[in-house]
Amino acid sequence: MMNTGSILLTDLYMLTMLEGFYKQSLNGIASYEFFVRRLPESRSFLVAAGLEQALEYLEQAHFTSAELEWLGQCGRFSPAFIEHLAGWRFTGDVDAMPEGTVFFANEPVLRVTAPISQAQLVESRLINLLNLQTMIASKAARCVLAANQRTLVDFGLRRAHGAEAGLLASRASYLAGFDGTATVLAGMMFAIPIYGTMAHAYIQAHDSEREAFETFARAQPGNVVLLIDTYDTEQGARVVADLAPRLRESGITIKAVRIDSGDLMIHSRNVRRILDDAGLKDIGIFCSGNLDEYRLRDLVQDRAPINGYGVGTRLDTSEDAPSLECVYKLVEYNGEPRRKRSEGKATWPGRKQVFRQYGTSGQMEGDTITAWGADQAGQPLLEAVLRQGKRVRSTEPLSKIRERSAHDRERLPEYLRVLENKTPYPIRIAPALEDLAKQADEAISRRREFLE
Amino acid sequence: MMNTGSILLTDLYMLTMLEGFYKQSLNGIASYEFFVRRLPESRSFLVAAGLEQALEYLEQAHFTSAELEWLGQCGRFSPAFIEHLAGWRFTGDVDAMPEGTVFFANEPVLRVTAPISQAQLVESRLINLLNLQTMIASKAARCVLAANQRTLVDFGLRRAHGAEAGLLASRASYLAGFDGTATVLAGMMFAIPIYGTMAHAYIQAHDSEREAFETFARAQPGNVVLLIDTYDTEQGARVVADLAPRLRESGITIKAVRIDSGDLMIHSRNVRRILDDAGLKDIGIFCSGNLDEYRLRDLVQDRAPINGYGVGTRLDTSEDAPSLECVYKLVEYNGEPRRKRSEGKATWPGRKQVFRQYGTSGQMEGDTITAWGADQAGQPLLEAVLRQGKRVRSTEPLSKIRERSAHDRERLPEYLRVLENKTPYPIRIAPALEDLAKQADEAISRRREFLE
Repeated sequence: MMNTGSILLTDLYMLTMLEGFYKQSLNGIASYEFFVRRLPESRSFLVAAGLEQALEYLEQAHFTSAELEWLGQCGRFSPAFIEHLAGWRFTGDVDAMPEGTVFFANEPVLRVTAPISQAQLVESRLINLLNLQTMIASKAARCVLAANQRTLVDFGLRRAHGAEAGLLASRASYLAGFDGTATVLAGMMFAIPIYGTMAHAYIQAHDSEREAFETFARAQPGNVVLLIDTYDTEQGARVVADLAPRLRESGITIKAVRIDSGDLMIHSRNVRRILDDAGLKDIGIFCSGNLDEYRLRDLVQDRAPINGYGVGTRLDTSEDAPSLECVYKLVEYNGEPRRKRSEGKATWPGRKQVFRQYGTSGQMEGDTITAWGADQAGQPLLEAVLRQGKRVRSTEPLSKIRERSAHDRERLPEYLRVLENKTPYPIRIAPALEDLAKQADEAISRRREFLE
Repeated sequence: MMNTGSILLTDLYMLTMLEGFYKQSLNGIASYEFFVRRLPESRSFLVAAGLEQALEYLEQAHFTSAELEWLGQCGRFSPAFIEHLAGWRFTGDVDAMPEGTVFFANEPVLRVTAPISQAQLVESRLINLLNLQTMIASKAARCVLAANQRTLVDFGLRRAHGAEAGLLASRASYLAGFDGTATVLAGMMFAIPIYGTMAHAYIQAHDSEREAFETFARAQPGNVVLLIDTYDTEQGARVVADLAPRLRESGITIKAVRIDSGDLMIHSRNVRRILDDAGLKDIGIFCSGNLDEYRLRDLVQDRAPINGYGVGTRLDTSEDAPSLECVYKLVEYNGEPRRKRSEGKATWPGRKQVFRQYGTSGQMEGDTITAWGADQAGQPLLEAVLRQGKRVRSTEPLSKIRERSAHDRERLPEYLRVLENKTPYPIRIAPALEDLAKQADEAISRRREFLE
């Protein structure tokens, strides 16, 4: 079993730098901000997610004795430094956008303020956790917009990148508006509604489809969804039509059929007709198979008679954008704004806040990024979540995060609701932040003239 | 912390099907095969990986009392079935290609033969584990071919999809020929060599780049790699050139500089010249930043003076192919071959073996997929790994897997070594397998005529 809480889920250079800081007794207060440099081409907004797991990580992060022993044996670090690591804990502050918040490029989503030896060490895992769930929640929100009220279920565990990816994809897609997941452990861990039917192997293990359907219905009478495409979809639907009255006599209702292959538009229409002709208008049609927001949109726009969808691989891997250009950058050290100026990677210095402006109808009109503490109209998006390593408030229930996400989705301007939108959302840099950038650059130049 | 060994890392339908099997006392011996339907467009071969984690999973899989209790409370299953699950263990057989083996579409990579209630339940997690590492190992092998002997290090943890993805990406890339990883926990868990330098924040936390370089070198004298692009790459190289003689007086050697931004071709040439002019020919140049096999190939072909590369996001997410079309399909039940005939998803029935033919120079010439037990020339690729739930041999050392992978890479025909290859590798279906498919189809038709 993987120790997903290990402090050694970090890049080696964090530890080499820490030893550098330690030997110089350099441990001033540093602020790092997590943000996304540029949105993927196929995203026009993102949904913040993963904060809860990030906080859990920070609260429990420490070096175990086995880890310290291994670090000692690897021969890269001095014994004094290893001993020092034994007392390492995260005792800093975190400000963040609450999960479910819509955000955009260059907006700080989370800020850590702590002694630099604490704030630096947690970089890899914080990015790892926030990137994953934000990426999935953002993809899921697009599916939710495209599906226009149809039921959506996460089917992606098998091709998610490992166990944690699968579990957190269930969580992220649910908070972004999905109705549930097929992943049982996500149901147990996060109380997400779980959905499930049958696989082709169940049909194949029986002598006939009819026998498989009937035994399944009798074994799971409260949840009868029958997979009808193992051999021939329309023939499968006819078997269901034939079987339904007999099952009804035993008090068993077939809830839905599932189609997992072929042209879903054509098959769903054929199947709907077969079921309707048999007077089975209440049996729903559930579809799956290589779905994403584009396929959902097309099926919904073409009025496919489909009541719900299972979305798998393309959701759980965020297939068209399997990572975000997200970073965690030093923005202030010892009270002084800092910025990196590497080519193509320059960042805004200093601690920041994002304010959101709304129109009279409640729609989002634009955001302003400004220096922390500067006056600005609008709704401030970052709030205090950790102070001196302790939570400012208790864990948010997933249902509350899901409501926030739905509310933000409702407030999206019309152009951001379109899958292939090219209109950028207005993000303004406030004069206060521009002034700070000028100061930081002048300070870098001064230090260089003086010291080099 | 995530329980990555949980048996509930499965789709709900596995459990609903299991209850169906249970209530019918249907539990014949089933064989399922894991294979990839089609290679991604940008892959012309794959590298098998993940078997070790799959076996660990099967060996320890069971329902904990907390899991059984939760399943009972969720109201979907009968108490008798829950009680039955308490005794669930995997006691079946597994045959598989050893890790590091090159393989192609439709070739079984792993086969489970067990009572159907065992073989079915493990589907989701087996696919999840094999998909992840096979995908990363295959991407990594392409990087290794492109880098033509340069040092390659996995830098991808931060944007890998969660902790397990990051750790297993380190393992998969190492077994496919990478030299190491930056992920410390992967070093501890898998004894993979770890690599690391410094981040921009280290430089920024100091008053000058020079001061940062010098303090770092004195703190980590055995491993001095200096990041020179925080402000201006060439200026950073000049600071290194100036500092090197002074550090040498203290017995400290600068091993390399790292460049993480800008045009790596231009900067590496400029930096090489600056270092060479200062007589520092021994200081290597290490580069990172949005690299993948295509960028590596271009830099190597253009003779960039770069000694090693860190490959991150695009490796750990397998960015151009973030999933494989891999499936785990019932191929035999109660001694009879089975196949699914869903549109576009038809499979070859029966238990199979893959034989590889080699040319006189030792190059791979083609594979033949045939029925298990049929006579065929060539090297058989699947071997026994589990019998009645127990390992046939002990865990393979990663070094041995890495050697096998290197050996297979050497035997790749020239056209498969090209990144944009369009020539398909010859895969033949043996007559014995075609006969089996005919039998299976006839059996399906017979059953349908008889029963429906």
